[in-house]
This record gives sequence, structure tokens and C-alpha cells, in this order.
Amino acid sequence: MSPPKVTALGGGHGLSASLQALRQITDELVAVVTVADNGGSSGRLRRELGGLPPGDLRMALAALCGDDPLGRQWASVLQSRFHSSGPLNGHAIGNLLIEGIWQQFDAVQGLDMVAGLLNVCGRVLPMSLESLTIEADVIGADPLHPDEPVVVQGQHEVAVTSGDVAAVRLVPANPPACPEAIASVHDADYIVLGPGSWFTSVLPHLLVPELAEAIVSSSAHRILTLNIEPEEETKGIGAAQHLEILAEHAPRLRFDAVVADSSFGADDRNLRTFAGVLGAELVVADLRCCDGSARHDPQRLAAVFRQVMGS
Amino acid sequence: MSPPKVTALGGGHGLSASLQALRQITDELVAVVTVADNGGSSGRLRRELGGLPPGDLRMALAALCGDDPLGRQWASVLQSRFHSSGPLNGHAIGNLLIEGIWQQFDAVQGLDMVAGLLNVCGRVLPMSLESLTIEADVIGADPLHPDEPVVVQGQHEVAVTSGDVAAVRLVPANPPACPEAIASVHDADYIVLGPGSWFTSVLPHLLVPELAEAIVSSSAHRILTLNIEPEEETKGIGAAQHLEILAEHAPRLRFDAVVADSSFGADDRNLRTFAGVLGAELVVADLRCCDGSARHDPQRLAAVFRQVMGS
Repeated sequence: MSPPKVTALGGGHGLSASLQALRQITDELVAVVTVADNGGSSGRLRRELGGLPPGDLRMALAALCGDDPLGRQWASVLQSRFHSSGPLNGHAIGNLLIEGIWQQFDAVQGLDMVAGLLNVCGRVLPMSLESLTIEADVIGADPLHPDEPVVVQGQHEVAVTSGDVAAVRLVPANPPACPEAIASVHDADYIVLGPGSWFTSVLPHLLVPELAEAIVSSSAHRILTLNIEPEEETKGIGAAQHLEILAEHAPRLRFDAVVADSSFGADDRNLRTFAGVLGAELVVADLRCCDGSARHDPQRLAAVFRQVMGS
Repeated sequence: MSPPKVTALGGGHGLSASLQALRQITDELVAVVTVADNGGSSGRLRRELGGLPPGDLRMALAALCGDDPLGRQWASVLQSRFHSSGPLNGHAIGNLLIEGIWQQFDAVQGLDMVAGLLNVCGRVLPMSLESLTIEADVIGADPLHPDEPVVVQGQHEVAVTSGDVAAVRLVPANPPACPEAIASVHDADYIVLGPGSWFTSVLPHLLVPELAEAIVSSSAHRILTLNIEPEEETKGIGAAQHLEILAEHAPRLRFDAVVADSSFGADDRNLRTFAGVLGAELVVADLRCCDGSARHDPQRLAAVFRQVMGS
């Protein structure tokens, strides 16, 4: 049986966990990555050089690096950062390399070159070829007017806001999708969305019109992976409400399976109902990393993906 | 017949030209590179991160990059520089990558990794594992005391001094050589020194005691390649005097061949005499690049190397 074609969408550590699980199942794997980061090394590079923020793309590439000493060596180098008292401090080596390649090659060509260097299992693509800004309506961010929505701009600022995020948008609105990402969605047997920061890594994919349309209209099985627990930007929001928020941002989107950790949402009676509304079976399993952190254990997540994919 | 084992010593554009010629003759090629650069991107990296200056090593790697599309693509990326109005401006991508690798791997391992990436023909090694400072006695650098020697520190400062360089030293004196460089000299059939900035790229190799001793005592054929014309740091100095200066810095060193361009030194009656004093046959040819620049044409230089090596 040929391996299933899987397209996984997300960003940051959540996508990285998803890819580390999926690579155990297939090498026909495409990662589609958010390009709205404005914090840390990526944010500084974006401001200095323009172009796409490289950080989430680099993390996805490293998550798929070849399972051989050389692939792992290169991944380790690209993931490492400079430590100095000068302007290079904090820059990830891989971010600088990707930016350097992009000075001569287009975004997708450049990522394919790094994929070759790391002997990557699969392919890593940006969701859009335009770098984007995330903008959110946040309630409670302004202490003087705690009930009024405030517009917060920037992925980083939204991710760490003290208020409650009510809705999220991309600026510019309706950006063009990366054509290769669209093709991979059309071609996929399985589409996996999440886990990840809900407003800043998961929902943005549904705000790129062509990409959302491709996901909605795809004949692939769609799997939604919830986080282990709410993050800063979704604190106080239950598992079921994560689905509600997603449905608000992409009303026509249906799923075949919603994967949840047993510690988050299993006791939420609404979660099964909301999963049902999305057309999905709810799959609950113990997915938390054995170190107790709020991250998915790649082995455990892979076992659930295998079960859902019937392989 | 197996290809000859060649060790080429130098730095900067001169070494690059030498390597581009020698790679046409052999793939048993080791470049041994000066590590005293303190100017430009290398100088800034050295000051911010410590460790060896990467620039001359990067240039040597690029000169030996694989003769295939991928090798050339990567070489082109590593040789390119950032252009911005921020702190990355002017940094060569390859310098940043090499520095990034060196955060985890030792100097030689790191260079071997980049060599693998570029599918390099041969190997590139630093002359020493310590980064060094070049110090020169310069006459005429101080307008108030034009006859008194002034100590000028720094490869860049020596290379562009307005005065006449009388002697050059390394700081710290007597640095340890890179063991792999020594081994390559012992193992070589041919040792090629120069072309390159005489005081700052050629002579420094003779100021590393173990390296100088290995070159002097080697049973290899020794070839010295003169520049096309004097550089800033040797302006007003004739071809024969270049040999004289070299002999002053390494009195026991003998050569089998001195390769000179027909535009520089061919009419200098002393050049053949001085070459003879060094034990060398003088080989004169038209070596200048067809663009008229003061660089060696790799094809022409390769033809002379073939003739000298009798292959």
C-alpha cells in the first residue's frame, strides 16, 4: 500500500509536533506554514530585510530533517542561535541561511534547497508568498475600558495579550495563497490542521481565501488536532469553544475527526456535541509529552493518527 | 596515473585563483588558509563572536565548489551578502553559516560540513586554530616622522597602509598550526604558495613555526606564484624584491619553481637571479585575466601548473 498523502497546516511548536508524528506514518508529507510571525529573530529579520518570516518554516524543516547523522547535524545547526552581546544575538542560524537564500531564489525554491540540505522527509511550504500581519479584536486589553474591543496588531502581541481575543484577521486581507500549498491540499488524502496557537497559527490558514476554499472543498479526510491545554491567547477558553471559534472563522469547514488530549476537553460534554456539529468523530487519547509539558508526544500522536487513518 | 596531491597556501582572492586553477589538475587538493583577517564582515564577526575569521575560508570553499548545479547554487548563496540598512548589511551568508556551525562543531569539522554542502573538490583548512593578528613595521606611515618605523596592527590596516611595510609578524607569535594542515603538507606531492597579498596572505603561513617547518622540510615540489602586479601593501616593490622579502621571513625555504606573469618581473633581470638563489626555475607566462584586471586567469594558471608538474 502506498503511503498516504498528508498535508499538515499550522505553525510553531504545534506544527512541529504534528510533523514529528506524521513523518512516522508517511513520507508523502507537506507542511503548510503560517507567515505572520513578527516576534523574535523572525520579526527582526522581517523588519531589516523584508520578505517572509523564516522561523516557523525553519522549525518545520527541522521537524522533518533526515533520520541520518548528517540530516540531524544540519538541523541542529539551523535550529541553534547566536549568543553574543552584539546584533546577531538571538538570531537562529537557519533563519539567516533561509533569508540569505531568498536573496537569490524565490521562497519555495529556497525552502526546497534547505529541505535538500536537511534530507527532509516531505516538503515545507509557506501558506502565502506575502508576509502577513495578524490583527485581533481583543476585549479587556484596555484597563480603562475593559468591555470595549481593542484592535491588537502583530502575531506576537496577539499571542501574549492579557485580554480575550474575540476575532482575528489578516492584514492585508485576502492574501494570495502559495500555489504549491493549494496543489498539495488538492492532492492530499488527509489534511491535518493544528495543534498550535489557535488564533495565530491555526486560524490564519482559514483566512487565506484560496487555501480555505481548497481545504473546505477537498475530498481528503480532514483531521483537527486540539492543543493539550489552552495557551496564553486562549486562556479560559474550553475545548468546545475552540471548535466554536474555528467555526466562526470558517463556517463551511467540516472535519472527519477531532483529536483531543484526555486532560483537556474529555470532561467537556459540549466537546463531543461541537465535534458532531463539525461532522467529526471525537478521538480522545493521552497525548501529553511524558515530561509533563503542554506539548504533544510525537509517538502518542502518531498512534492516534494511525488509528484515524485506519493504517 | 593517480592525480597529484597538492596543498595550496594563501588567502583571499589570490588563493581562490590558485584553487580554481589547481582543481583542473587534481581533486587531491587541500587549501590552507590564513586566519588573520580583521576587516569587513569577517572582522565584525570576529569582534562579535570571537573565533576564527571565516571570510577567506568561505572564499576557498566557494572556489572548490562542486561542478554541478547544486554545488554552484550553494556557493553562490554562501558568497552573497546581505544588503540592508540594519546590522546584517555586508555580512556574507557563508560567513554567518560557518560561524553558526562553529557554535557546535570544531573549526575543521565545521569546514568539512560546508565542504560537503558545496560538494567541494578537495578540502579547506585554516593555517591555525587560533585567530591571529598581523602586525607590521611600516616606514612612512607617520607623516611627522617619515623615516621611523611605525607598528601597524591588523591585516586590513597593513593591507591598505600608505607607508612601506618592512617586516610582518603574527600576534600572538608562534601560534600552533592546524594539525590537519601540517599532515596535508607532509602528504603533498606539490606545495603551492601564493599568489595573494604578500604580507597579509602569503607570508603569514611562514610565520606559523610548525607550518613553516613542514613546508621547508617537505619532500614535495614547491611552487611559488607571484602576483600579477604589486598590491597596495607592496606598491613600488619589484618582483625580485618580493622574493627577497619572502627569504627574509623564511631563510631556509627553497622552491622548485617561481611562476611569474609576463607583465610583472619578466623584464626584471634580478628576478631570475633571485629565483635561482631560492633554487627555483623561473616560469614566465601570460597569466592575466582577459578582463585586464590584476587577477590570474584560472585556465592560464592551470596550463602553467600542468607544465611545471610535468603532467
